[in-house]
Amino acid sequence: MCGVVGIYSEREDLTPHLLYYSLYALQHRGQESAGIAVWRKGIKLHRGMGLVHEVFNRNVLNEFRGNAGIGHVRYSTTGSSTFENSQPMLVRSREGEIAIAHNGNLVNSFELRKEMEMDGRVFHSESDTEVIAQLLGKYLLHFDVLESFRRVTRELVGSFSITMLLNDMLIAYRDPYGIKPLCIGELDSGYIIASESAAIDTVGGKFLRDVMPGELIAIRNGEIESHILFKNSYRANCVFEYIYFARPDSIIDGRYVYDVRLKIGKRLAREHPADADIVSPVPDSGITFAIGYSHESGIDFAESLIKNRYVGRTFIMPAQELRENSVRLKLNAVRSNVAGRKIILVDDSIVRGTTSRRIVDMLRKAGAKEVHMRIGSPPIIAPCYFGIDMATREELIAAFKSIEGVRFMINADTLGYLSLEGLIESVGLKENELCLACLTDLYPVSIPGEKCVQHQSSLVEF
Amino acid sequence: MCGVVGIYSEREDLTPHLLYYSLYALQHRGQESAGIAVWRKGIKLHRGMGLVHEVFNRNVLNEFRGNAGIGHVRYSTTGSSTFENSQPMLVRSREGEIAIAHNGNLVNSFELRKEMEMDGRVFHSESDTEVIAQLLGKYLLHFDVLESFRRVTRELVGSFSITMLLNDMLIAYRDPYGIKPLCIGELDSGYIIASESAAIDTVGGKFLRDVMPGELIAIRNGEIESHILFKNSYRANCVFEYIYFARPDSIIDGRYVYDVRLKIGKRLAREHPADADIVSPVPDSGITFAIGYSHESGIDFAESLIKNRYVGRTFIMPAQELRENSVRLKLNAVRSNVAGRKIILVDDSIVRGTTSRRIVDMLRKAGAKEVHMRIGSPPIIAPCYFGIDMATREELIAAFKSIEGVRFMINADTLGYLSLEGLIESVGLKENELCLACLTDLYPVSIPGEKCVQHQSSLVEF
Amino acid sequence: MCGVVGIYSEREDLTPHLLYYSLYALQHRGQESAGIAVWRKGIKLHRGMGLVHEVFNRNVLNEFRGNAGIGHVRYSTTGSSTFENSQPMLVRSREGEIAIAHNGNLVNSFELRKEMEMDGRVFHSESDTEVIAQLLGKYLLHFDVLESFRRVTRELVGSFSITMLLNDMLIAYRDPYGIKPLCIGELDSGYIIASESAAIDTVGGKFLRDVMPGELIAIRNGEIESHILFKNSYRANCVFEYIYFARPDSIIDGRYVYDVRLKIGKRLAREHPADADIVSPVPDSGITFAIGYSHESGIDFAESLIKNRYVGRTFIMPAQELRENSVRLKLNAVRSNVAGRKIILVDDSIVRGTTSRRIVDMLRKAGAKEVHMRIGSPPIIAPCYFGIDMATREELIAAFKSIEGVRFMINADTLGYLSLEGLIESVGLKENELCLACLTDLYPVSIPGEKCVQHQSSLVEF
Amino acid sequence: MCGVVGIYSEREDLTPHLLYYSLYALQHRGQESAGIAVWRKGIKLHRGMGLVHEVFNRNVLNEFRGNAGIGHVRYSTTGSSTFENSQPMLVRSREGEIAIAHNGNLVNSFELRKEMEMDGRVFHSESDTEVIAQLLGKYLLHFDVLESFRRVTRELVGSFSITMLLNDMLIAYRDPYGIKPLCIGELDSGYIIASESAAIDTVGGKFLRDVMPGELIAIRNGEIESHILFKNSYRANCVFEYIYFARPDSIIDGRYVYDVRLKIGKRLAREHPADADIVSPVPDSGITFAIGYSHESGIDFAESLIKNRYVGRTFIMPAQELRENSVRLKLNAVRSNVAGRKIILVDDSIVRGTTSRRIVDMLRKAGAKEVHMRIGSPPIIAPCYFGIDMATREELIAAFKSIEGVRFMINADTLGYLSLEGLIESVGLKENELCLACLTDLYPVSIPGEKCVQHQSSLVEF
Repeated sequence: MCGVVGIYSEREDLTPHLLYYSLYALQHRGQESAGIAVWRKGIKLHRGMGLVHEVFNRNVLNEFRGNAGIGHVRYSTTGSSTFENSQPMLVRSREGEIAIAHNGNLVNSFELRKEMEMDGRVFHSESDTEVIAQLLGKYLLHFDVLESFRRVTRELVGSFSITMLLNDMLIAYRDPYGIKPLCIGELDSGYIIASESAAIDTVGGKFLRDVMPGELIAIRNGEIESHILFKNSYRANCVFEYIYFARPDSIIDGRYVYDVRLKIGKRLAREHPADADIVSPVPDSGITFAIGYSHESGIDFAESLIKNRYVGRTFIMPAQELRENSVRLKLNAVRSNVAGRKIILVDDSIVRGTTSRRIVDMLRKAGAKEVHMRIGSPPIIAPCYFGIDMATREELIAAFKSIEGVRFMINADTLGYLSLEGLIESVGLKENELCLACLTDLYPVSIPGEKCVQHQSSLVEF
Repeated sequence: MCGVVGIYSEREDLTPHLLYYSLYALQHRGQESAGIAVWRKGIKLHRGMGLVHEVFNRNVLNEFRGNAGIGHVRYSTTGSSTFENSQPMLVRSREGEIAIAHNGNLVNSFELRKEMEMDGRVFHSESDTEVIAQLLGKYLLHFDVLESFRRVTRELVGSFSITMLLNDMLIAYRDPYGIKPLCIGELDSGYIIASESAAIDTVGGKFLRDVMPGELIAIRNGEIESHILFKNSYRANCVFEYIYFARPDSIIDGRYVYDVRLKIGKRLAREHPADADIVSPVPDSGITFAIGYSHESGIDFAESLIKNRYVGRTFIMPAQELRENSVRLKLNAVRSNVAGRKIILVDDSIVRGTTSRRIVDMLRKAGAKEVHMRIGSPPIIAPCYFGIDMATREELIAAFKSIEGVRFMINADTLGYLSLEGLIESVGLKENELCLACLTDLYPVSIPGEKCVQHQSSLVEF
Repeated sequence: MCGVVGIYSEREDLTPHLLYYSLYALQHRGQESAGIAVWRKGIKLHRGMGLVHEVFNRNVLNEFRGNAGIGHVRYSTTGSSTFENSQPMLVRSREGEIAIAHNGNLVNSFELRKEMEMDGRVFHSESDTEVIAQLLGKYLLHFDVLESFRRVTRELVGSFSITMLLNDMLIAYRDPYGIKPLCIGELDSGYIIASESAAIDTVGGKFLRDVMPGELIAIRNGEIESHILFKNSYRANCVFEYIYFARPDSIIDGRYVYDVRLKIGKRLAREHPADADIVSPVPDSGITFAIGYSHESGIDFAESLIKNRYVGRTFIMPAQELRENSVRLKLNAVRSNVAGRKIILVDDSIVRGTTSRRIVDMLRKAGAKEVHMRIGSPPIIAPCYFGIDMATREELIAAFKSIEGVRFMINADTLGYLSLEGLIESVGLKENELCLACLTDLYPVSIPGEKCVQHQSSLVEF
Repeated sequence: MCGVVGIYSEREDLTPHLLYYSLYALQHRGQESAGIAVWRKGIKLHRGMGLVHEVFNRNVLNEFRGNAGIGHVRYSTTGSSTFENSQPMLVRSREGEIAIAHNGNLVNSFELRKEMEMDGRVFHSESDTEVIAQLLGKYLLHFDVLESFRRVTRELVGSFSITMLLNDMLIAYRDPYGIKPLCIGELDSGYIIASESAAIDTVGGKFLRDVMPGELIAIRNGEIESHILFKNSYRANCVFEYIYFARPDSIIDGRYVYDVRLKIGKRLAREHPADADIVSPVPDSGITFAIGYSHESGIDFAESLIKNRYVGRTFIMPAQELRENSVRLKLNAVRSNVAGRKIILVDDSIVRGTTSRRIVDMLRKAGAKEVHMRIGSPPIIAPCYFGIDMATREELIAAFKSIEGVRFMINADTLGYLSLEGLIESVGLKENELCLACLTDLYPVSIPGEKCVQHQSSLVEF
């Protein structure tokens, strides 16, 4: 998971500021590194490890002037937390300078790299982004921008929402399955393209619409063009954006995330009612689900867990004797709400089950009479290949345990997962518009060793 | 506002870890600097600017061994954000080494310093803590610890909850009015004293009780002693700990903060009902009040504002044109909940009124039909002299405007403040057990130029 | 100017330490950045801005184990002091990983890059090193290592002494003109290749010989091979290595630098005697010349200028009023040696003349009766294209002023430059073995817009 | 060893710049920390760990305006390298603010602190400087500045050269024995007081004279006053300033350091001639001695050792196997000068003897036929109590070995130390004007457990 943004502004001096604030708004999509690239005669790049407010300072924002710019925040995935992997990536080609910010994951990155190495090319990184950059470099030699993107797309298997500078041209492109979100908004002085609409709100822009799967948007000298490079009879919007990743105040593919979560909570109340005194969320991810559950069930919404707002990205692991307490650094029970109460505890999902177990135990220790766990998604049974660092299949508790087995393991009195139908109806998109792979083990694109959804393939070039 | 902690542990190696995690739990009380001091043959001190996880590293925790230690997190008050002001403060006296962590504020600090300077003493800082240290140094010459603290207390006007090392002795002391909180808990391996009970929970300890106003606790070689140095017929627990400062999962002077806030919310619903579609908090401070209001009124609790969890302590101020949007970096409206709705918006307090105005405007822009502001405290009409960096009297909007005037200024449809009686009853302490100075303009201790509560003075030494 | 090193050691744990200490020994060749790359299953890279002791810490040295490694220190050239430009550069190709450390400068870098971009390649940097890496990637596809280097060499115009890892193979290569130095030594546990022999001494190795122009050395699994890829009837060893760049305790192409400088000093005494009381160097670069001058002339060697050893790479420029004193931060006159004395002041070269003027003025202010400037090189009249950031032709004072004009400008009583014959004889190599371009305006290779030495071209492949 | 400076300038904006550059010039006296304090309405302090150019930046210099300021560089002594120990030290007293920069060491610091603690005072540090500050705080209550300094002086045993701000008054004071140097110069815009005259030269000032032992200089509002607080029939200028500490371009107590060193070298040639081919220094400390030896003996001065200019304050200790080579990081033999030669090697002193041994071995390995060690000082047989971190008595090789024993241990062919008479005559001061304690084991002041020089005590107050 990552966040991308692109800005075109008539006001050269505002561009870096607009990038900075929109990255700020997308910080939840990646805390490992941040960076921006701005065109003015040439492309200037600034990136670094850490949060947006750590990477930038006033000088950078004042020095980076230009009409077109892109930005990126990177999520920390295992083992590769280095400066070299921070984005945007900048390369120089015959066609000029190319800066790319990429959200997504390629399944065939390794194969593509090997193939191009056969051609005598060398790679500076192991990132998917460089694969895209080199493919573009190759096709731009012989084709125009649109045809080059068509050809690049034909080669890539996976997810990609991209913002890019090709010299002074700002380009945004979303893969034909629309796995990762991307949307466009209008500014007083130009346009903004971002992973989530909340970024548009943050800079005072007006949300226009989602970028469509297979759509390429190009902005240059104030002129904006849209080109549908591919049409597809089905799409595969990541359902976990609605459940967990996206900010609740964002619109993702026509659906307001907050509303989806509220509906999930209500549906959960209907699917898995429970006789309880209060409905409580696991903060922060379970809050809106729990509110929906409360509205539908009529059971009071009340907090049974308080989260320490200052738990940072890193803290020193406790001495062995204190390790069992590590969840207490993050969460603490609200005794007066918990003691002697029957509690419906709502969370967004269960991955490994270990954290759920610790939380249930904490509530029991604080005197909870009953703990009824309700989950705003169906069981996660398969890994994600499209950019979510969830877990391996072996680590997914629901991949090899029954629901009763999970319930027993997390020590809850009852456990209710949202049904797949419930989820789909709550989102309000059709089944063939969503990527549900982690819940169904059926992938929207062909992945070696995995089963593929039996959609009638229909990717059509335009 | 600051946070203090003291640890006595039979396990020398655990002490620094316990200090670290309890400071982590108190991080909300101060983000400017953090530090610990641990005794082992001598006192070792480590402190620095920044958050707890920025100031410490594994090496420090592993090197600082000893049975007794104290810790401090410091709140950023204007103009003095320097390393020299970080705590604990360490001095050497005839009686040995003294390390002090202090939460509170002295009203007569300047006078005391001048007086001691007349004696030929020199001061390294302008902090209250050094005044206390030097007074202790003076009295410990001629008197034992208890008598010294009695004499120091007689000289100080203001608030102070202190943890301290006098060589290998851990001392905790709370001023006779009990203005700032302090409590004690039991650990497997010893004791913990902390500003809030949530810190005790975090390290897996057992809350024992609040330290009493005028009580000194001394721990040495595993022996714990309690001494009531002063008895007082009234006290003055800061009421804003319940309203805003303390974590909701803390017990402050016998009252569970979460419960108090829930009761305030309910009382507010009775005192200031409104015909509305939803009850929403200003996150995060208004959440529990809003839940209580919802429970009492039966109106659905729903979020109308989403907070960016990553808004750091500092961010680069936007370019002039973007400045009006600065509140958007922090908050964004949940359109689906807001549009066309009548909203009861609940916050803890109004200081200057400028933020409230921006939030109301944001809701209106998002389509709110009506905004009914409800405040979980009476109007703030007087400044705090005891350690809260609220604002000057001139800046307090309620100090010079009627409630209608405030309502007009913040652009709300209606505005309801909690009554003083409502507040006192919600807390559950008597009026003469609370410091209500900022709400009543009557101070619990004599302050030049201010009116004092007409309690029958009754401070009695023991 | 930069420094490179390559280590092959049977002792995996020693390799990073040996790299570190040999870079330490080459620090004078580059203070901007430093880095190492070590092979063990794959190539690990560590590099950063700053001096060797700032870039590395104990952890890095302990974690980087492997038999083969390379290192680099980079000289600060204008405008490109960024992390991205630090070396070694690491790329991945079909043949595996390639890490390159490069000392030198390509004249046709821009053309080569454009040409490869025509091929659809993209570049991550504007560095010559990447050009070499990409060419290698291209040729290694079809040819073995030796043939690939032959073909790469045919394309490059300029200077290059390279150490490189091709997976587990350590390669060292020197351009067929031998412009930049490179030598090889033996270690107890393997081999060391370095820009200067002083690095070999520093790690306790035994100097074997210079790497020959056009020679490629490859070491793998303890086996060392030498291949002469090109034979040349003339070469072009940079003469300024002897005059200024190299450490005096290094052997460069068979000549001990200290000896060359001593001989230059003696020759200067014969070519430009002066009636004076003392001979003094401009420290540190003039010291050995001055000692030689003293030996030959019999005039006492004595210091007339003291250098502040702590003048760092950067210091804050003085306020306007103090700017005239800036040379005083670095140098101060030794009054007792200077006052009333006739001084022969010896320096290595004059570039712009401004510093010389300030120094002469400083001596006069300190009471010098006469200042006779003697320069250990002929006038610099042409720019360097091979890696020395000297100055542009316009800035070179001797390019447009007569010797008398320079003398007048620097305010010396007399001025004597070493003759070209004197220089060549002092070095002890033949004229057609040296690059004298900056002194003669005749370049050893064909450079657009410049005159080329009329050597009978004779580059022969082997 | 430390360096101090004081500036009074009519130009408020120049003061911080003048402090900065003069500290730069004194950097050799202390590399651990640096700091300045400037008065303007109140005293502003900036200090930090590291070299002058690391501690300061342009902002600090531009913000610190005021007519009077002081500065300090601190030498790294074992075990106390912390921010808290950096200077200037700033305290507040009844008389106002006091900032002190101190060069020297008190022998009775512990006793004085204990005594004042008996009085109920507390100390923030274990530094001598705080002792002086607290004593001043005490006496300034009852006495004027002059009388206070007289009384403070009566209590202190040890060395102290002080620059100080007492509010807007710049004070410089030197102990009645004049152990540490201090001198005064004139600036275009005011005055400068500094540890060494080279600092005066660096800022373009005019050296006026040494501050006399027991003299206090006070500057305020442009008015300068001198007061001799004590007159003494003998003094005790540290002889090692001439031998090692001071810059050669400084004037210390009327003697130009360069001249003293040159004379020492000549005298050494007369006292300990040798039949040799060349005279070489151990760089950098032996250079001037070696030049003097060469002048007197007629034997050629030539370098046999090259020093790596970039060996920093810290480097990572080599792996065990490389440790024997550690001296090679710093020094390398000049083979052509060394091989087959008889060398006179000149150094300033021998402390433990281990480094000398390594150097001699290095020369022998490089082929030296004979190595004749000549030392520019008599044997060091006693520790220093006045601020030089030499070594303990047990570590001083000459304290328990004969000269022949030392020669054998360092593996030299012959060894010659300068005689005490030779040293005294070279300096040009009388025996009773120098502190020779480390060479004679007779201390100028009474130190418990040590013998005192039998001067007729004659300290007279004025």
